[in-house]
Amino acid sequence: MKVREIAEFLGLDLVGNGDAEVVSVADLAIAGPRQLAFFEGSDSAIETDASCLIVPTSFLSQAGQKMHMPDRALIAAPSPKLAFSRVAAILHPKPELLCGIHPGAWIDDTARLADTVSVGMHASIGKGSRVGARTQILPGVRIGDDVSIGEDCVLHPNTVIESGCSIGDRVVLQAGVIIGADGFGYVKEPNGEYIKFPQIGTVVIEENVEIGANSCVDRGALGETRIGAGTKIDNLVQVGHNVNIGRRCVIAAQTGISGSVVIEDDCVIGGQVGFGDHVRVQSGAVIGSQAGILPGKIVRPGVWWGTPIQPLDEYKRQNAHVKGLERLKKEVADIKKRLP
Amino acid sequence: MKVREIAEFLGLDLVGNGDAEVVSVADLAIAGPRQLAFFEGSDSAIETDASCLIVPTSFLSQAGQKMHMPDRALIAAPSPKLAFSRVAAILHPKPELLCGIHPGAWIDDTARLADTVSVGMHASIGKGSRVGARTQILPGVRIGDDVSIGEDCVLHPNTVIESGCSIGDRVVLQAGVIIGADGFGYVKEPNGEYIKFPQIGTVVIEENVEIGANSCVDRGALGETRIGAGTKIDNLVQVGHNVNIGRRCVIAAQTGISGSVVIEDDCVIGGQVGFGDHVRVQSGAVIGSQAGILPGKIVRPGVWWGTPIQPLDEYKRQNAHVKGLERLKKEVADIKKRLP
Amino acid sequence: MKVREIAEFLGLDLVGNGDAEVVSVADLAIAGPRQLAFFEGSDSAIETDASCLIVPTSFLSQAGQKMHMPDRALIAAPSPKLAFSRVAAILHPKPELLCGIHPGAWIDDTARLADTVSVGMHASIGKGSRVGARTQILPGVRIGDDVSIGEDCVLHPNTVIESGCSIGDRVVLQAGVIIGADGFGYVKEPNGEYIKFPQIGTVVIEENVEIGANSCVDRGALGETRIGAGTKIDNLVQVGHNVNIGRRCVIAAQTGISGSVVIEDDCVIGGQVGFGDHVRVQSGAVIGSQAGILPGKIVRPGVWWGTPIQPLDEYKRQNAHVKGLERLKKEVADIKKRLP
Repeated sequence: MKVREIAEFLGLDLVGNGDAEVVSVADLAIAGPRQLAFFEGSDSAIETDASCLIVPTSFLSQAGQKMHMPDRALIAAPSPKLAFSRVAAILHPKPELLCGIHPGAWIDDTARLADTVSVGMHASIGKGSRVGARTQILPGVRIGDDVSIGEDCVLHPNTVIESGCSIGDRVVLQAGVIIGADGFGYVKEPNGEYIKFPQIGTVVIEENVEIGANSCVDRGALGETRIGAGTKIDNLVQVGHNVNIGRRCVIAAQTGISGSVVIEDDCVIGGQVGFGDHVRVQSGAVIGSQAGILPGKIVRPGVWWGTPIQPLDEYKRQNAHVKGLERLKKEVADIKKRLP
Repeated sequence: MKVREIAEFLGLDLVGNGDAEVVSVADLAIAGPRQLAFFEGSDSAIETDASCLIVPTSFLSQAGQKMHMPDRALIAAPSPKLAFSRVAAILHPKPELLCGIHPGAWIDDTARLADTVSVGMHASIGKGSRVGARTQILPGVRIGDDVSIGEDCVLHPNTVIESGCSIGDRVVLQAGVIIGADGFGYVKEPNGEYIKFPQIGTVVIEENVEIGANSCVDRGALGETRIGAGTKIDNLVQVGHNVNIGRRCVIAAQTGISGSVVIEDDCVIGGQVGFGDHVRVQSGAVIGSQAGILPGKIVRPGVWWGTPIQPLDEYKRQNAHVKGLERLKKEVADIKKRLP
Repeated sequence: MKVREIAEFLGLDLVGNGDAEVVSVADLAIAGPRQLAFFEGSDSAIETDASCLIVPTSFLSQAGQKMHMPDRALIAAPSPKLAFSRVAAILHPKPELLCGIHPGAWIDDTARLADTVSVGMHASIGKGSRVGARTQILPGVRIGDDVSIGEDCVLHPNTVIESGCSIGDRVVLQAGVIIGADGFGYVKEPNGEYIKFPQIGTVVIEENVEIGANSCVDRGALGETRIGAGTKIDNLVQVGHNVNIGRRCVIAAQTGISGSVVIEDDCVIGGQVGFGDHVRVQSGAVIGSQAGILPGKIVRPGVWWGTPIQPLDEYKRQNAHVKGLERLKKEVADIKKRLP
């Protein structure tokens, strides 16, 4: 790809040699010729051999003019990282890992696969399941009965989709993801034994969702567990039964979401957060890592922190008070001495 | 199933049309004709099209009489949720997912399987292992050598049972569970390198246990790791080597249990709890989510919370004190001003 | 193995019958004839039927002489546990689980395997991958394209190594481990949608590393994620993209390490610890379980605890102050009464 074509694709201005060729992206620190890098700071002393550098618009107007660029180019972007990511998606397309159905895969006769679906060795697809065009099912993936999978999905090795679940278009499941295991719901018998509350619902994953390695999304008890379009979930996350996550949420690793939690659109959740059941997180809320949220709590928009969660400001103030306890104790001791 | 048969099965009274047919269970909010729902509150204004509703005994005597029920029925139960769960288990039996041994499974010649065992495609069973009647081994399950598995178990896709482990009757392992990985025990050499303390023990899982997706139960170092009958474990839980969990315990998602911990019968453990090694939890204790328990601690019966854990009452009082710190600080400042 | 041979192997002194035979190791409490046990305390009243006991040097000189040992022996060691572990590794070698390539495995024609590699049923190896001598690849393991695996590794069932990753000699991956899933990095479009920041780097795992069941190590975004030689990682641990872990570190279960964290050599990290991104932990630091470390923090050598982490001493002192709050409040109330 020529730098000129990259600038055109991004709809951005370039300075320098638009004919330079770029074949891959790289980190600024190690990028070499025929590579594209990006830069978000304002330091004017950039040394790089990259053939093309995406820089902040402000940088170009200030320092960029001074760079010596016989055979390379700068592209000015309002968000260099975003522009870089867009180009990377073109220069580094998802490899077409497979072509067609591997002879070592096992597909039930009643499953319906689009012509362009790939299925890897030792993958299996159950009765009545449907898979959309260009979806790639990698080795060892387990798809149960009556599962519906959209177009252009990538299911990494050894993921499991239990029967009856539904996956939208352009969904990516990293390796080892489990969709549709039974939720954790039991009722106590008078003799103290637990019997299972029915876990016969389903999971619906909307388009453009990505779920990280070894994460789990349980099926609804009676209804559904749903993950909204464009939401991104990291590794080892637990999503309980009947959880409803909105669109464009981001949830970091090892967070646990109990049953019937609702997370509205555009929330950002840190890692190792714990949600009690029936929590509702309102649209746009941000919850810091390791926070803990009591059952039934309504979390309003804003930034939240700690266990039990508080607004970040309060959390910081309280933390400062706790850190000041030694001094406060001393003050009280001094006062006592001065008392009549 | 007729409503009359359901009431007989439960040994409970019914009011209304005992001849109504019920084919499935559903949530009260969406239940329709030929469905069974339940209701635990006391609100008298229930609108539902369900053909049968299980209600609290008190409700039936008060409000239920007024409901208009030409072609449906109410059943009165001391615990409607329990009664509902019992009926659901009959109306929605575990699907017989497989019949016989799939030709794509691989079973060692020396393994002994009861006639009625099902083994899915790409599952494998090692030397000398035994599997009891009606157990279902789903696709991609890995069973090592000399494993013993009881009757009526369900092993979901891609679970792994390493060699020498023992699984009782009616055990359910959700997808991706790992039983019998090596425990985490090392000894430091004088040069700073770690060598493995032997991890050559085993795992014993007693009858009626259920373990959630992607949870791990490590084998004992020299002895065994044991999970008692009727205990239910959620997803992504870590059970370390030589842990001994009693009967009828409930352990929520992402909790981590270090080596040699003992949890006695009938304990309830929240999610994301962390146990130091050699903790002993006495029978009937309840530990709140995200709690942390220092190594060697003995946890008496009662409700415990926080890190390090405290009785819930103390935890709440202390939390209130911390919240009141701002005010306390102000009081001290005021006192100082008033000092002579 | 005769006790005399064991003592020679360890280079340690023995007292008693050097001709006694030992065939296996066992816990002191249950060890019987022809077994080896060890003992680290100073209690002089040991009752055991073990044929050989490894005891502290001091014990032998004091109490050991008095033991009645017609057909058994004591070996004196500076670290009995270490000596025991060394002998256990010889008496209980890793079973040679497999011999050769199972006919149910699938190996791409372009992969290059040493003659002595074992590959289990339903395992798969992609294009251009290389596997070193004596490495055991157990059933259901998924190895992508262009993966490099060293000698004497053991890859337990259903582990996944994505394309392009590199594994050194003598590495053990417990079941369900995922190496090389995409890291969690997205950039927000102006319309609020997230697009993926390129995750096209790799993972390098150096020699003698062990990783626990269902743990995940993400590939670098542009560069690499690296785990240094001799480091041991427990189950369900998350290692984010571009993390760099040094040599001989120990990381307990369910800890989460965010992107670009650096952990230098010889650190010890407890369970359920959470690292913000770009944290640097200096060589020799010890971090207690459930600690939380804010992004960008530099953790100096020493023992650290709590969220946000503090030196252990400070953490304890602060905890004591918080516990004393009820009393402090009372003191302030008393003072107020005594004010003029």
